[in-house]
Amino acid sequence: MEENKIIYNIIGIVHSSHKSIEGIPIQPIGAKGIKAEIKLSEEFQEGLKDLEGFSHIIVIYDFHKSKDFKLKVKPFLDNENRGVFATRAPKRPNSIGLSVLKLNKIVKNILYVENVDILDGTPVLDIKPYASRFDLVEKERNGWLEKSIDKSSVKKSDNRFR
Amino acid sequence: MEENKIIYNIIGIVHSSHKSIEGIPIQPIGAKGIKAEIKLSEEFQEGLKDLEGFSHIIVIYDFHKSKDFKLKVKPFLDNENRGVFATRAPKRPNSIGLSVLKLNKIVKNILYVENVDILDGTPVLDIKPYASRFDLVEKERNGWLEKSIDKSSVKKSDNRFR
Repeated sequence: MEENKIIYNIIGIVHSSHKSIEGIPIQPIGAKGIKAEIKLSEEFQEGLKDLEGFSHIIVIYDFHKSKDFKLKVKPFLDNENRGVFATRAPKRPNSIGLSVLKLNKIVKNILYVENVDILDGTPVLDIKPYASRFDLVEKERNGWLEKSIDKSSVKKSDNRFR
Repeated sequence: MEENKIIYNIIGIVHSSHKSIEGIPIQPIGAKGIKAEIKLSEEFQEGLKDLEGFSHIIVIYDFHKSKDFKLKVKPFLDNENRGVFATRAPKRPNSIGLSVLKLNKIVKNILYVENVDILDGTPVLDIKPYASRFDLVEKERNGWLEKSIDKSSVKKSDNRFR
């Protein structure tokens, strides 16, 4: 293991209706009602205890179809080049994705989730409870997204990050 | 590279006043006003363009002092064993941490952040803009945290995840 590398294990897989990286809602806000399942490896099932009490979860996953990165990207919501860390674009130095999903139920090692903007087959790295006191920021500035953020509920992905 | 592994590169380091894993605020909500710096590797500096327009950022990092994991943990805010995925505890199958931090300014490759609950020397994996439309859930259930969540602003870490 090299000094500057971090190695994680895939703990589960997303099974969703999004079979291609084109045409996916670009955020959970644009995927309202779209259901999917996260199948956790059985060895981790015990770690799901008590999670069902939360209505929302944070899912951290790998954009596994994103094979390289750019430091400047044209996000789906914009036509100007933005610094990649000022966007949620998948072509990041580390291709880590994050979505806040609605959790409907858990049966054994399967999480039934809603508002899913994640590609079928996506490897899952971590699941955390969404907690309003930790994760909710009431007053904030949304930078370049401010003027285009309302488009995020209808905009779909295209081939720009292929 | 094994089939079930994902390898990321460290892109930066947190420099904070939290020098020991004991006595750290357990969430940014308990770290109000605590300032720190994230030093991004210079090669990625260009990716920070436009980020300063956002008042808050999501920082994804590795709990590098957490060397193993448990599927049931007693979280700092509770005395019952909870499934690890229903907690934010560091001893997770993948030791991935996530904090929503206030961004004060960016100078070259250094981000000046506030409300920092992160250990000094922590390796950073990704930085994303916090966007209210993407990340804010208005109505939610907070599971077991509901009854203890108000303690999170004063509670400090102890040695249980050493």
